[in-house]
Amino acid sequence: MNWNQNKAENVHIAYIGGGSRGWAWGLMSDLASAEDMSGTVYLYDIDLKAAKNNEIIGNRIRDVEGAKSVWEYKAVETIGEALCGADFVVISILPGTFDEMESDVHTPEKYGIYQSVGDTSGPGGIIRAMRTIPMMEVIAKAVQEYCPNAWVINYTNPMTVCVRALYKTFPQIKAFGCCHEVFGTQKVLQEMLKNECGIEATRDEIKVNVVGVNHFTWLTKAQYRNTDLFPLYKAYAEKYRETGVPRAHEGNWVSSSDYFGCLEKVKFDLFLRYGAIAAAGDRHLAEFCPGDWYLKDPETVADWKFALTPVSWRKEDLKNRLARSQRLVSGEETFKINNTGEEGVNQMRALLGLGDLVTNVNLPNMGQIPNLPLEAVVETNAAFRADSVQPVMAGALPEAILPLVGRVAAEQEVIVSGCMNRDKEEVFRAFVSDPLVRLPLNEIRAMFEEMIEKTRSYLTEYERA
Amino acid sequence: MNWNQNKAENVHIAYIGGGSRGWAWGLMSDLASAEDMSGTVYLYDIDLKAAKNNEIIGNRIRDVEGAKSVWEYKAVETIGEALCGADFVVISILPGTFDEMESDVHTPEKYGIYQSVGDTSGPGGIIRAMRTIPMMEVIAKAVQEYCPNAWVINYTNPMTVCVRALYKTFPQIKAFGCCHEVFGTQKVLQEMLKNECGIEATRDEIKVNVVGVNHFTWLTKAQYRNTDLFPLYKAYAEKYRETGVPRAHEGNWVSSSDYFGCLEKVKFDLFLRYGAIAAAGDRHLAEFCPGDWYLKDPETVADWKFALTPVSWRKEDLKNRLARSQRLVSGEETFKINNTGEEGVNQMRALLGLGDLVTNVNLPNMGQIPNLPLEAVVETNAAFRADSVQPVMAGALPEAILPLVGRVAAEQEVIVSGCMNRDKEEVFRAFVSDPLVRLPLNEIRAMFEEMIEKTRSYLTEYERA
Amino acid sequence: MNWNQNKAENVHIAYIGGGSRGWAWGLMSDLASAEDMSGTVYLYDIDLKAAKNNEIIGNRIRDVEGAKSVWEYKAVETIGEALCGADFVVISILPGTFDEMESDVHTPEKYGIYQSVGDTSGPGGIIRAMRTIPMMEVIAKAVQEYCPNAWVINYTNPMTVCVRALYKTFPQIKAFGCCHEVFGTQKVLQEMLKNECGIEATRDEIKVNVVGVNHFTWLTKAQYRNTDLFPLYKAYAEKYRETGVPRAHEGNWVSSSDYFGCLEKVKFDLFLRYGAIAAAGDRHLAEFCPGDWYLKDPETVADWKFALTPVSWRKEDLKNRLARSQRLVSGEETFKINNTGEEGVNQMRALLGLGDLVTNVNLPNMGQIPNLPLEAVVETNAAFRADSVQPVMAGALPEAILPLVGRVAAEQEVIVSGCMNRDKEEVFRAFVSDPLVRLPLNEIRAMFEEMIEKTRSYLTEYERA
Amino acid sequence: MNWNQNKAENVHIAYIGGGSRGWAWGLMSDLASAEDMSGTVYLYDIDLKAAKNNEIIGNRIRDVEGAKSVWEYKAVETIGEALCGADFVVISILPGTFDEMESDVHTPEKYGIYQSVGDTSGPGGIIRAMRTIPMMEVIAKAVQEYCPNAWVINYTNPMTVCVRALYKTFPQIKAFGCCHEVFGTQKVLQEMLKNECGIEATRDEIKVNVVGVNHFTWLTKAQYRNTDLFPLYKAYAEKYRETGVPRAHEGNWVSSSDYFGCLEKVKFDLFLRYGAIAAAGDRHLAEFCPGDWYLKDPETVADWKFALTPVSWRKEDLKNRLARSQRLVSGEETFKINNTGEEGVNQMRALLGLGDLVTNVNLPNMGQIPNLPLEAVVETNAAFRADSVQPVMAGALPEAILPLVGRVAAEQEVIVSGCMNRDKEEVFRAFVSDPLVRLPLNEIRAMFEEMIEKTRSYLTEYERA
Repeated sequence: MNWNQNKAENVHIAYIGGGSRGWAWGLMSDLASAEDMSGTVYLYDIDLKAAKNNEIIGNRIRDVEGAKSVWEYKAVETIGEALCGADFVVISILPGTFDEMESDVHTPEKYGIYQSVGDTSGPGGIIRAMRTIPMMEVIAKAVQEYCPNAWVINYTNPMTVCVRALYKTFPQIKAFGCCHEVFGTQKVLQEMLKNECGIEATRDEIKVNVVGVNHFTWLTKAQYRNTDLFPLYKAYAEKYRETGVPRAHEGNWVSSSDYFGCLEKVKFDLFLRYGAIAAAGDRHLAEFCPGDWYLKDPETVADWKFALTPVSWRKEDLKNRLARSQRLVSGEETFKINNTGEEGVNQMRALLGLGDLVTNVNLPNMGQIPNLPLEAVVETNAAFRADSVQPVMAGALPEAILPLVGRVAAEQEVIVSGCMNRDKEEVFRAFVSDPLVRLPLNEIRAMFEEMIEKTRSYLTEYERA
Repeated sequence: MNWNQNKAENVHIAYIGGGSRGWAWGLMSDLASAEDMSGTVYLYDIDLKAAKNNEIIGNRIRDVEGAKSVWEYKAVETIGEALCGADFVVISILPGTFDEMESDVHTPEKYGIYQSVGDTSGPGGIIRAMRTIPMMEVIAKAVQEYCPNAWVINYTNPMTVCVRALYKTFPQIKAFGCCHEVFGTQKVLQEMLKNECGIEATRDEIKVNVVGVNHFTWLTKAQYRNTDLFPLYKAYAEKYRETGVPRAHEGNWVSSSDYFGCLEKVKFDLFLRYGAIAAAGDRHLAEFCPGDWYLKDPETVADWKFALTPVSWRKEDLKNRLARSQRLVSGEETFKINNTGEEGVNQMRALLGLGDLVTNVNLPNMGQIPNLPLEAVVETNAAFRADSVQPVMAGALPEAILPLVGRVAAEQEVIVSGCMNRDKEEVFRAFVSDPLVRLPLNEIRAMFEEMIEKTRSYLTEYERA
Repeated sequence: MNWNQNKAENVHIAYIGGGSRGWAWGLMSDLASAEDMSGTVYLYDIDLKAAKNNEIIGNRIRDVEGAKSVWEYKAVETIGEALCGADFVVISILPGTFDEMESDVHTPEKYGIYQSVGDTSGPGGIIRAMRTIPMMEVIAKAVQEYCPNAWVINYTNPMTVCVRALYKTFPQIKAFGCCHEVFGTQKVLQEMLKNECGIEATRDEIKVNVVGVNHFTWLTKAQYRNTDLFPLYKAYAEKYRETGVPRAHEGNWVSSSDYFGCLEKVKFDLFLRYGAIAAAGDRHLAEFCPGDWYLKDPETVADWKFALTPVSWRKEDLKNRLARSQRLVSGEETFKINNTGEEGVNQMRALLGLGDLVTNVNLPNMGQIPNLPLEAVVETNAAFRADSVQPVMAGALPEAILPLVGRVAAEQEVIVSGCMNRDKEEVFRAFVSDPLVRLPLNEIRAMFEEMIEKTRSYLTEYERA
Repeated sequence: MNWNQNKAENVHIAYIGGGSRGWAWGLMSDLASAEDMSGTVYLYDIDLKAAKNNEIIGNRIRDVEGAKSVWEYKAVETIGEALCGADFVVISILPGTFDEMESDVHTPEKYGIYQSVGDTSGPGGIIRAMRTIPMMEVIAKAVQEYCPNAWVINYTNPMTVCVRALYKTFPQIKAFGCCHEVFGTQKVLQEMLKNECGIEATRDEIKVNVVGVNHFTWLTKAQYRNTDLFPLYKAYAEKYRETGVPRAHEGNWVSSSDYFGCLEKVKFDLFLRYGAIAAAGDRHLAEFCPGDWYLKDPETVADWKFALTPVSWRKEDLKNRLARSQRLVSGEETFKINNTGEEGVNQMRALLGLGDLVTNVNLPNMGQIPNLPLEAVVETNAAFRADSVQPVMAGALPEAILPLVGRVAAEQEVIVSGCMNRDKEEVFRAFVSDPLVRLPLNEIRAMFEEMIEKTRSYLTEYERA
């Protein structure tokens, strides 16, 4: 890239998973809105056709209403072509297909184990990690080879283990992981301020201290100007602990299906147990707690007013997105530039020197959370400035929460180590400890082997051992 | 004390809980066998009569066969009389009576929660901690006032939180906690060496690296001369995982009832899950694991071939010991000097400069286990030398075990903090997280309040809040 | 304070040392320029008359050209009146008079020891710490009593030990220390960019990573947009190592005398030795290095092109400032609103929620510099947001610099401990190690006692020992 | 090796530097005295002839009076022959010849810098490190290849950086470094007990807590039975601070020349400055302090009553030892078995399971000294047991000493890193900071280059850069 007065030009972004019909379109929209940047986005995907479609879609955007900058999109055939010379690398991949995810999420149901998401933790998250981590190693090595100074932004789940694998593979990598679940919780606080106090605040005005691991993140401070939001939240949690927040059970922060929504009852229960604000959707939070708390069976889930997201829904949704892709490619539908509310582009701007930013990211623990293991990937706020991302000292996890989150961080270290060693038995040691997996050892073994068998084509590297 | 050539004379030992009819007699026996020490043991007990009886019993021992040194026993009416000028302080108390313990252990059964011991962790251990910690504070303050340089040896449970409370109250205290569960595990290894290899080794020749928290301690190395015992143990665990060790279901290392025995199946299951040797009796180990693993219900316990120790048995046993005390006082029965296998007296000898010793103790973590929290009380080996106990660097808990043990250490920090603050709600935050307590929040609250109500007379200091 | 739309009103600032004729006027100027804040500044000073004069001066400013907000100034007779209800506390005091400082700086010259500033480190800094720390304890206790939630901004030297004493006295204090020496170094980089590359950048655009202790701070990264400034700086240091920067030897960043200027030769020498940018004026840097490097004798100092600031100059300068104060009070001179370049007011704005800010401050080490001792006060960047200051993870000091800076941090811990214990001998253990004090033990003792004797009236509390 | 009842037979020891005419003979003597061990010692040396001579000498010892066990000695031509199958590896080499050492010690004298030993720290120690570390890397790699489970005992100086290089090269190495300087200090305490109190204690009865880095080690506790030796030592230091200990200026603990002795004046001065006992010979201690304290010039050294050991003496002494070697080989002189007082053989016995031992060693810091950097090599006590060496938690360096020792540890990390990277400039960054090197940068550079030039044949690997 180069500077032209106060504008960063010829910015080179490599998008790994560039055939995506979700995140990629969001990024395109946000880039088009950034008037002080322009450049090229190289789209790399194992599904080249999908990348080519996004090339077509992307190159039309400059002409859409609201486009403030010009970006060129190029689908490329190799990861090297995408990365060579990159300033930024975006990783947003699906590890395997929804068939593998179907096994991750639903095979455990045979054994009486229910998962609301199944992509982060629990048996599904662990098997997904086995597929994903080797892919992250490939990407990290390619970054090391082609663009060692690029900033790498990961959106792929399981977030924690992905970022950890990037750093273990190439320790000098300048990578971080982004997730919007904390934003969603800021919005819950916004909603509270409005409903209970009649105050209209922007999300950005809700200043929070973020501490934890991705999808099991906690707020230990939430402040609006000179108002401490904790006493308000306590009253709010007590008021709605039984009923949940009185809103239509309408989609949460990402998608628009009932399968993603929640009425914050899990969040409130956790607050009443521990005194801090759990900062992710209830579907994610539930998966980090002992299985009999919120995920015992579908009835329990219904009582808690969140949902088990079936993979069948994801498959159906994909069809709709494919159809939309066709319409965008053919020109039948016109791309609309909307602010996604994601911060990826603002993070890039800050890294270019176009305005400091403090926001939450996933990074190896250098001490920003003193009572979690060093190097484990944790989620806290960080200061983004020119060519620099530095986590702020988030402080220790509250004593009462440490047993829960510390356990998660420790388990994820075992998962990463096991996967990078391609050592099934090491991974199994995490699997037997997972709080959703509460079975006798022989049943755990049976479930583990069945899940591996069903996703075998992605796990051939583990067969050596 | 003073030195007379190579003998330590006028050693002053204060025994808090000096009316004990178990540990006290064992100490008397071991002291009588130590030919290079002599002195006075001051017996302090809230049951003065019991202490007086032990004075009579103790003062007879010097004339018994096998007595190699002379010790004087004196029951005293105040803790100050016992402590003033002490070289050593032994703490071995029962916090409350067996009525309170009955509530600790059996009230949770109403809620479907079973405990095999109920004095360390789980709901029973936590409520017991609430009673015990204020007593430890009293003792620590008295030590600070009367004998700040004395070495303080604690045998009281819950060990971890007792030792932590001593140090939090008087940070310069020279205290440590002793427990024989690791010795029991060394004996399992001795038995294995004999059964499987025909080798007769002494317990002391089985060198182990100890790492963990009391009653949930792990061995990461076990060596007999140049033989690494881990491969042997792995085969042993696999051989007997279903049946348990083929021995009569006869008492374990302390007592002689079926209620204390186990066939090591839990130990073997944990080895097969995690690859390290859990080093305590199965009854203790089970209580640190999620409740549905080994303690789901009495049938599960029976399958795992250990036992739920009913407090009714302890009450019956106490009657027998009281009767024996009467016989010893009256002279009807003669005291027998036996080596108890405990190490308290050898530890005292080492502290006096009578021979270095390396053995396991409970001490605040100064880094001997780098991946557990600093200051939390942990169990490792330590070097005992003249006026010095220094833990050895035990090394990190294995990654796969960290999620389990780290959770325990973190929970116990919350318990100690809550108890020292006399803050029921803070204690409750540990209570809701305990892996044996897996109930909805309102049921946990009901159980917690019922357990407190039933032991109310010992918990009046918590009522302020 | 309270909010009125987007403006913070009734902000209460307590100024300790409110009779100041330097910093206080600067703050007045910056406050007058802040259009989104207004309120009252309570001026407390042991010299009440001086505070009263500043009340008069301050209350006139609202009518001066450029005043964008109204602030009321009130001189008060007790610290409690100043602090009660404060939102912010500013500490800017002179510990003792310039007579004491004259002894600090010039007594060591009798022993062959030269100091360029004498207020931070070295014999002068240590004796000054002995005077200052007890004052900081008084202030911290008053903050605890009157305004425990206020934000406390310290400008007093020795900065590191002052901030440490505030936290040791009242651990929950929300205090930080501000210093402009890093800004001065950013300006050196600005000047370099302009001279060597013809680029005009603002100070704020020079993004630096700050790591070290106050006045011996280092930059491990300096970035302007996408330009890494280190290679440039290396060439610059080599180019001007002998001559210094070719500029008139005109004052440095604060004052306007030859006694404060430098031509950066020390800074360049340190860069060529260690490869990182020392970020303070050369007068300060020199005092942390072994005495024979830059401060051997006045000739050596002249060679290095910085200056020994005589206290006689400070006394003369004070006279001028007093005269100016009289003119401002009498109305003979009109106050001018100028941007001082200090960040105190912007920090306050960020703490009120009026815009996030990342800048350098002095705070206890929570791990932001992993290889300096925890709790020692260190200087790094921090994120300022609503009611929150969180240091960013600055990363480890470079290996080659650690021996120097680690030594300083360790020495300052001894100083603070010794002063807070009012233990002269403990302070003396730091004194004998200071790199400027290179004398036989008996001479060190003589100098130490002489310096204490000469400032005795401020050190009576140390006489007990 | 194998066990035959209670005896360890066929123990295989590899001696790297097996042509040694000092340490090797001591080891031979101690091995001959150990009745519960026997085996073979493989002697490897770049001077094969010297090793062959030692083979002859060693094989005669079994017949000498006092020999209690039979050891076979074999000179071998390759390091692989020595290491293959080894249980223990002893490293005791001279890096280069005394010609190189002559440059290390005496070249700096041209620049006004005096060194009393010149093999550990200071300019001589640093250049010696440059020669030695590459040799340690070769040895560590050979251990990894031929005997990864062997215990490796290093005696070579500079101790700290040697052990660090072994671990950095092969992190799983089971290595430690042994040094007798602490024993010497225990003997000073023995002597004190005898002279001042009339008590005869053995060295082993003086229990000390060791904390620091090799040759700059400190005792923070010294206990004889129930006597704290610190108050005695304080009086002793004050009594003899001027005169030194009233003993003939006769050799210290190793050799028998005036060039090795001292009257403990440096030790006493350091105690009076810092309140802890410096535990090495004064010649070593002086080299870690700022150069103008004890090593300013030969007169200063004479005042402090220790000596600058000239390398010419070492050359002369070598001649004598060569002559003695000839007499031992020819049979003209008979080998005498004497207890050397070294602990190497007892350490081996403990590692074999023949008796636990607590003694001081040099090992990477795992937290045994919490305020020194992790992984830096430090000296503390450790527990030796079967196949295990575990440092005891020595505790933090006293605050007043931390600035001195922390600086050393940090400097040595730079040296090791620079040498292992073969990066002269990185080494130079340590060189410029060394407290003996107090010169302007250009003179430091000249001295550094001259010292390298004079020892160039051993430093060819550094020429690449």
